[in-house]
Amino acid sequence: MGVEFKVQAGDVTLVSFVIPSGVLNPEELPEVLANAPYVDATKGVIISGRGPIWLFVALAHFYHYCVWVATHDPRLGGAVVVVSHVSRVKVGEVIGLPKA
Amino acid sequence: MGVEFKVQAGDVTLVSFVIPSGVLNPEELPEVLANAPYVDATKGVIISGRGPIWLFVALAHFYHYCVWVATHDPRLGGAVVVVSHVSRVKVGEVIGLPKA
Repeated sequence: MGVEFKVQAGDVTLVSFVIPSGVLNPEELPEVLANAPYVDATKGVIISGRGPIWLFVALAHFYHYCVWVATHDPRLGGAVVVVSHVSRVKVGEVIGLPKA
Repeated sequence: MGVEFKVQAGDVTLVSFVIPSGVLNPEELPEVLANAPYVDATKGVIISGRGPIWLFVALAHFYHYCVWVATHDPRLGGAVVVVSHVSRVKVGEVIGLPKA
């Protein structure tokens, strides 16, 4: 499988991914999404990993059923909320990553 | 404004963005999305530009009303379909960029 996932559940769900081979082919994307872990929809989710932009976009779309979705930006030291269905968390907000 | 957009309409819509200052603050994201151009929902849209992952994700979510959404990956020489509402275009497909 092209992508390995790890889920850390808590107040916020951290979904981390690794591409073991270092390279992902776009053709693999449907299978990657089919293997993406389901998480608690009532929690926000942070997506983190080293991978192509299209993988992040596809995963963020996949996790759209969660109350909010953020993507980890190591340069900012946190995750930027890109989609939110709740007023308490705003798009553009930077959320700290949960402790491991 | 933090992001400038250019729209090239055709069989496929190309939405290109530029961050003139080179740096975008996540706080600017709501305003950036408020300024993102509306495009023909019946066409696929390709998002292209140099910017952070969270900008691509937020824009892809914004253009979710289009029949499909792809993000340009210069390394692949095309755009990867990340969301599709039509059977003729599949997630993971690589679409060539339209001629300027």
